[in-house]
Amino acid sequence: MPELRKDPILDRWVIISTDRQKRSSDFFLREKPQTSGGFCPFCEGNESKTPPEIFALRRNNSTRNNPGWSLRVVPNRFPALTIEGDLDREGIGMYDKMNGIGAHEVIIESPRHEDTLSTISIAKLVDVLAAYRERIVDLKQDKRFRYILIFKNHGHSAGASLEHSHSQLIALPIIPKRVLEELEGSKKYFSYKERCVYCDIIHQETSQRERIISENSSYIALSPFAPKAPFEIWILPKKHECAYDKEPPDSLESLARILSEILKRLDKALGNPDYNFIIHTSPIGMDDLDHFHWHIEIMPKLTRTAGFEWGSGFYINPISPEESTQFLKEAKI
Amino acid sequence: MPELRKDPILDRWVIISTDRQKRSSDFFLREKPQTSGGFCPFCEGNESKTPPEIFALRRNNSTRNNPGWSLRVVPNRFPALTIEGDLDREGIGMYDKMNGIGAHEVIIESPRHEDTLSTISIAKLVDVLAAYRERIVDLKQDKRFRYILIFKNHGHSAGASLEHSHSQLIALPIIPKRVLEELEGSKKYFSYKERCVYCDIIHQETSQRERIISENSSYIALSPFAPKAPFEIWILPKKHECAYDKEPPDSLESLARILSEILKRLDKALGNPDYNFIIHTSPIGMDDLDHFHWHIEIMPKLTRTAGFEWGSGFYINPISPEESTQFLKEAKI
Repeated sequence: MPELRKDPILDRWVIISTDRQKRSSDFFLREKPQTSGGFCPFCEGNESKTPPEIFALRRNNSTRNNPGWSLRVVPNRFPALTIEGDLDREGIGMYDKMNGIGAHEVIIESPRHEDTLSTISIAKLVDVLAAYRERIVDLKQDKRFRYILIFKNHGHSAGASLEHSHSQLIALPIIPKRVLEELEGSKKYFSYKERCVYCDIIHQETSQRERIISENSSYIALSPFAPKAPFEIWILPKKHECAYDKEPPDSLESLARILSEILKRLDKALGNPDYNFIIHTSPIGMDDLDHFHWHIEIMPKLTRTAGFEWGSGFYINPISPEESTQFLKEAKI
Repeated sequence: MPELRKDPILDRWVIISTDRQKRSSDFFLREKPQTSGGFCPFCEGNESKTPPEIFALRRNNSTRNNPGWSLRVVPNRFPALTIEGDLDREGIGMYDKMNGIGAHEVIIESPRHEDTLSTISIAKLVDVLAAYRERIVDLKQDKRFRYILIFKNHGHSAGASLEHSHSQLIALPIIPKRVLEELEGSKKYFSYKERCVYCDIIHQETSQRERIISENSSYIALSPFAPKAPFEIWILPKKHECAYDKEPPDSLESLARILSEILKRLDKALGNPDYNFIIHTSPIGMDDLDHFHWHIEIMPKLTRTAGFEWGSGFYINPISPEESTQFLKEAKI
């Protein structure tokens, strides 16, 4: 069973997941580059090669775990956490650990191997965003969990192990450190100003107009003032809302439009870069926070200095967000 | 001039360093792999290709910026920060910035291109460790600085842009976020227990003996209980000391011995991996902290998932520190 361990100095939990392992001797060899072609368990027709589906969008006459779907959610075959069992906390001297209970699911975004989130239609992208919400709403009922993390690794250098376009969901018995920091930082700001810091950012960016890449009636896409990496982008709802799953269903089309545009701009401006995105939403049971504002963070994978920056929390960015904004806006899509 | 900008939500500063830039259009192209062979500005005989030296260990009859050295410290030719100027803080609406004053130096560890820290003699490694201290002591006198960061990127995937073995030093007008977190976390522990958390870790590890890779009379090398990446290693002084530069000079040989052994074990066990290391020491003006304990963190670059983990602060480690410890101890060096 995987194990969650807490760093004794920092408020950070890590998963030690030796079930999905790589034996130690495997680290001797470098990771092999992702291969194109060959067998793909996520393609239509190969449904039996994934664990049974949890959720799917299907044609009326199709049956579960068979062809005829446009989107499928399945458990990760090599889950970082185990869904079965009770949460069990334990101290080992000064250290803290708990057993690795959680959900780890894969959202297969299209039956077609060649699709990507930047090439599929708006309607299909709405389906993906709606599937995220569907799974969040379902997993929120599980009292063992405190946080649901939705993220996407696109491309090998961003950590994707399969080429076929997919996102991932991890439901956790803890709140990830970065989210905790945003909750605390935004709370501090709120207790001083009595305003949401993200709402204030939207306000200031809208008047300064130097870092807005795109906006529509409901959403705004911008380069943050102090980006940790080149071309980092945030997408935020203009209306204050802390929880992704409370976003009105009829807004998802606007969200799909702006996300699609941003991914197209990145593809065009940077030559189809690998990227990660992650949804930062409020923790389970905190559906009504005045100080927190859900958002998507997108990070194209362009630089290689992560190791040092990992160790220091100190980022050197070789391009200003004003310049990257301009460059993305000028991309002809 | 480079600029320091603060994230409005988190306690994190970033450097926007467009002087050393890459123009935006360069991001379109992938980074080129580091090339072996060809001209190297760090090799003996090419002294005129670096900025003038700040510090060097030389044969008696040799002259500044000429051959005859065994170690050289020079300013980084493409510094992330500028050494000249006054610190100037400014608010832009809700945002904070200051001009990018700081030092960025390169420690060239050997005149020979083929040397690495794991292959040079203990005496030469002592010289490297002593040069770190020398530069820290000197830069501490500059009242504009609050922190001096020493780090090493070894190999292309760890962020090294030149192959010739070197470390880097950055003197900063702010304290990097990760160091701040360690200072705060260890202070919280101290105020509860009245003991240094790192001293307690050494104590518990010494009695558990599951994660100690090596130790000598003055230093211990261990795998942390909750490592953020496979084969992460910490080296700590056994005797409580918060500042690297206050380490007794006659201890540096013991430190060189354990560091050399650890790097050799990594080379052997993992096939000469790329790696980063970083020294976490106390900030300038805090030379006598009961709660903080200086240490080196070493991270071999083995996995590719940094992007997602960057965005969440949430780490999935496919090997337990007990197993990686065992694997490193068994390496025949």
